[in-house]
Amino acid sequence: MDDVLCAVFPVGWFGGEPPRRRVAKVLCFVAGATANFYARPLEGVTLVVDLDRMAIVGYRDRVAYPVPKAEGTDYRAGKVGPPYTGTAPAPGVVVQPEGRGFHIDGHVVRWANWEFHVGFDMRAGTVISLASVHNADAGGAQRRQVLYRGFVSEIFVPYMDPVEEWYYRTFLDAGEYGLGLWAFPLQPGGDCPANAAYLDGYFSGQDGNPVEGKNMICVFERYAGDVAWRHTEAGFPNQLITEVRPDVSLVVRMVVSAGNYDYILDWEFKTSGSIKLAVSLTGLLEVKGTAYTHANEVKQDAHGTLVSENTIAVYHDHYVTYHLDLDVDGTNNSFVKSTVTAVRDPGGDMPRRSYWTVRREVAEREADGQVDLGAGGPPADLVFVNPGKKTRIGNDVGYRIVPAGATAASVLDDDDFPQRRATYCKKQVWVTPYSRSEKWASGLYADQSTGDDGLAAWSGRNRAIRGEDIVLWYTVGLHHVPCQEDFPVMPTLSGGLELRPSNFFERNPLMRTRPARRHGQPIGNCSCAGASS
Amino acid sequence: MDDVLCAVFPVGWFGGEPPRRRVAKVLCFVAGATANFYARPLEGVTLVVDLDRMAIVGYRDRVAYPVPKAEGTDYRAGKVGPPYTGTAPAPGVVVQPEGRGFHIDGHVVRWANWEFHVGFDMRAGTVISLASVHNADAGGAQRRQVLYRGFVSEIFVPYMDPVEEWYYRTFLDAGEYGLGLWAFPLQPGGDCPANAAYLDGYFSGQDGNPVEGKNMICVFERYAGDVAWRHTEAGFPNQLITEVRPDVSLVVRMVVSAGNYDYILDWEFKTSGSIKLAVSLTGLLEVKGTAYTHANEVKQDAHGTLVSENTIAVYHDHYVTYHLDLDVDGTNNSFVKSTVTAVRDPGGDMPRRSYWTVRREVAEREADGQVDLGAGGPPADLVFVNPGKKTRIGNDVGYRIVPAGATAASVLDDDDFPQRRATYCKKQVWVTPYSRSEKWASGLYADQSTGDDGLAAWSGRNRAIRGEDIVLWYTVGLHHVPCQEDFPVMPTLSGGLELRPSNFFERNPLMRTRPARRHGQPIGNCSCAGASS
Repeated sequence: MDDVLCAVFPVGWFGGEPPRRRVAKVLCFVAGATANFYARPLEGVTLVVDLDRMAIVGYRDRVAYPVPKAEGTDYRAGKVGPPYTGTAPAPGVVVQPEGRGFHIDGHVVRWANWEFHVGFDMRAGTVISLASVHNADAGGAQRRQVLYRGFVSEIFVPYMDPVEEWYYRTFLDAGEYGLGLWAFPLQPGGDCPANAAYLDGYFSGQDGNPVEGKNMICVFERYAGDVAWRHTEAGFPNQLITEVRPDVSLVVRMVVSAGNYDYILDWEFKTSGSIKLAVSLTGLLEVKGTAYTHANEVKQDAHGTLVSENTIAVYHDHYVTYHLDLDVDGTNNSFVKSTVTAVRDPGGDMPRRSYWTVRREVAEREADGQVDLGAGGPPADLVFVNPGKKTRIGNDVGYRIVPAGATAASVLDDDDFPQRRATYCKKQVWVTPYSRSEKWASGLYADQSTGDDGLAAWSGRNRAIRGEDIVLWYTVGLHHVPCQEDFPVMPTLSGGLELRPSNFFERNPLMRTRPARRHGQPIGNCSCAGASS
Repeated sequence: MDDVLCAVFPVGWFGGEPPRRRVAKVLCFVAGATANFYARPLEGVTLVVDLDRMAIVGYRDRVAYPVPKAEGTDYRAGKVGPPYTGTAPAPGVVVQPEGRGFHIDGHVVRWANWEFHVGFDMRAGTVISLASVHNADAGGAQRRQVLYRGFVSEIFVPYMDPVEEWYYRTFLDAGEYGLGLWAFPLQPGGDCPANAAYLDGYFSGQDGNPVEGKNMICVFERYAGDVAWRHTEAGFPNQLITEVRPDVSLVVRMVVSAGNYDYILDWEFKTSGSIKLAVSLTGLLEVKGTAYTHANEVKQDAHGTLVSENTIAVYHDHYVTYHLDLDVDGTNNSFVKSTVTAVRDPGGDMPRRSYWTVRREVAEREADGQVDLGAGGPPADLVFVNPGKKTRIGNDVGYRIVPAGATAASVLDDDDFPQRRATYCKKQVWVTPYSRSEKWASGLYADQSTGDDGLAAWSGRNRAIRGEDIVLWYTVGLHHVPCQEDFPVMPTLSGGLELRPSNFFERNPLMRTRPARRHGQPIGNCSCAGASS
């Protein structure tokens, strides 16, 4: 019995009156010779615990499958080697001879053209607020607002096996567990590179006393070998011009280990004015015990992939929903869909039979602010603009939403219970007017929630959103069909989005940037005599 | 006249018999006080040149717009500063105390678990071939094939203005210009980080003599601060386990400067077995002269964005099409669509009303191998499998195609002439049987092509592709609605795809990897006593 570990699972809600009892399910696993107890479920045994009484109020022992073997499941270095037979790239480290380029003043981070506040919240994890950018071209010290506040509002993870032991596994990781509560100290040099700085997080424990979390968030300059902008001009006779600006960005990272899974959540600030949000999934799969030891024994839907003997990694989704209260150059913004629209038979004596142009639609009400990126309609640029601000030549000042993969939406039935608790996962984009009570997409109280509160319910009021203080809700979504490579620990898989300035600046804000230098000499540029090819 | 520069543009094909003459259009620009002559078109003047006779056979001077001003268009460091008023992050450099981890032996690159050949082609640019991976878990020295050959087959860039001076601007950058011909020496420290190695490229010049291109391709280990895999386990009483493996990957990079635009084309090999293909767009916009100096003067469709006074950046697309002759663990492969399919009313006494499962469809013929990722149908995992190889527990050995944003498809009319020359751009994925003559998606002869040759024509034969030596064609697509930030030079915008092992390995191939070390001590791991929160 010393090898048995049990973990707590929310019961969800599956119809009927809202439950009155604070109950949770408890499932047990065998650690034994491995730290990876999630790989060794005592499949079929379910306990129900009343959290107020701290009493077992239900017990079920329904099926009996072999506990998967411990061999090959441990991921700790000391258990898999030496000898290490795997790959070993050369060690490398980023060195900053002049030190870090950013400054942390309490919770305020200043770096390059950016300034923002980093907070920590037990439910949301990292909270970025008051992010503003400086426009060097404009001169002066004035800063321009971009983001009033941004954070991960919810992570919905429904599993796709309807049996007794699995149907309720439809996790709301922020609302039911707490992303900040499940963040742990980052490992210097591993989770974040050697040039990172660290911030602690504080929250109130269950007894009301303050709890300090060390190294909850790291901040570092990222030198990934990317290019900020470049051009080679071969059009001049006997002259080849090349100008390059290597890219450096600032990353604010937290890792949430919500039970078996690990989410690496990055905020990346770019000197170009972009903010990139990246979610990288790693950690352990949630697996189901089975009698199968080979795929050819599987005669009916296994609801997952056989990833090892007696081990099925159950199909599931990940929906990471951001609350992004953009304040593009001021509080009042509008949401504009610029739809790429084909024009047939342009007429005249033109030889072209078609082209596309942009049909611009300003969202009036919340229903116009809901977008299903996978619906197959004409593609659109989605832009937050400030209707009160124009550029010198009259364009709307804005920020554009650029999805970076991972745009899956939920395919569950609209009236399925987990779907009703996370209705918003049918669309990746929602825009709502700011309301201080509307922070959590799955509703304020997520555990055993019934879907009456939350983003879809609020948006259903169809309030006016044009020229208002509006909030973008964006969901990064993945359908996860596991494979053997995801076992026993999963190589990172990433998705995200970019908030990219769109007529926010008068021109590329990097124009007046000094070229990179090394040993005092500029690098990456060559405006030199010489034949172009 | 010393300030006037002219550039050559393909005439395309706009119906009728295939043309007999080798002609091109010539457009002129005013450099003057800027290197950015593309920003200063002599709009309205078009010359047609017979390339055999080297004679002007057509001249048109149709409209007269002001030449946009030179001020604010130059991008060279010496012209925009000092004083540099822009942002300057701290300098940083990757240091590898034990030297590089890869070896270049002629054209063969060996690094970590990867081995591949890097070639250079005047049309395709970089060609990666015979890429194979080693499986440390399996022991022995045996390598497993992944990619027989991969390269960029075409870059189609149609502009969306039907007027006389613009309708024919529907570039096939590989077929009409040559990606290798328009690659130029990479700038160390700018285009590639300080730890990069460089490869030269050779091709035959127009006179038949060999031409050497110096530093056409760079190879470097990328230390981006990412994580290969990690997990924190808080489930053990009084013990917190954290294991992290920082990620290092190997990048093979070329930059193509096809006239005004620059394409940074990366092949990124990962120790996890993935190959990531990334396209980063930067460089100069192709702009149109106009009388407009403010957006409120624009009363009809301008076919683009007013990015500066007298300067319209015309709407356009970018379609970067890869030829990827995958040989997953051997030559004969099948293409499998694993479609995420909702199941309603699972029945029994289960409380769930829906879930999803995977419907697996093996493509029999070429028509089954064509996929429009934006069609709005149910989402699918696209996998190349080896039907002759199974894992220990019976799964198909495969590699999965994971799009990373930029999945736009052409919206031009099917019977528009540029569309007929690049029909394949209506779908992102095509699978064809290998044929040594089928390398160029736009056909062997792209200049003035009529669409009778090329990927769509070949695929129209609907050949058998199940269990054959098959080729994946994948198009990274973007609709580009320009903004002022893209002027006068554009911050990089990226898209791509990941080829990710899917039951290719028996388990995560990184399991036996040695943890990172610094000063001889392992970093990034902590299996230590201590209360978990």
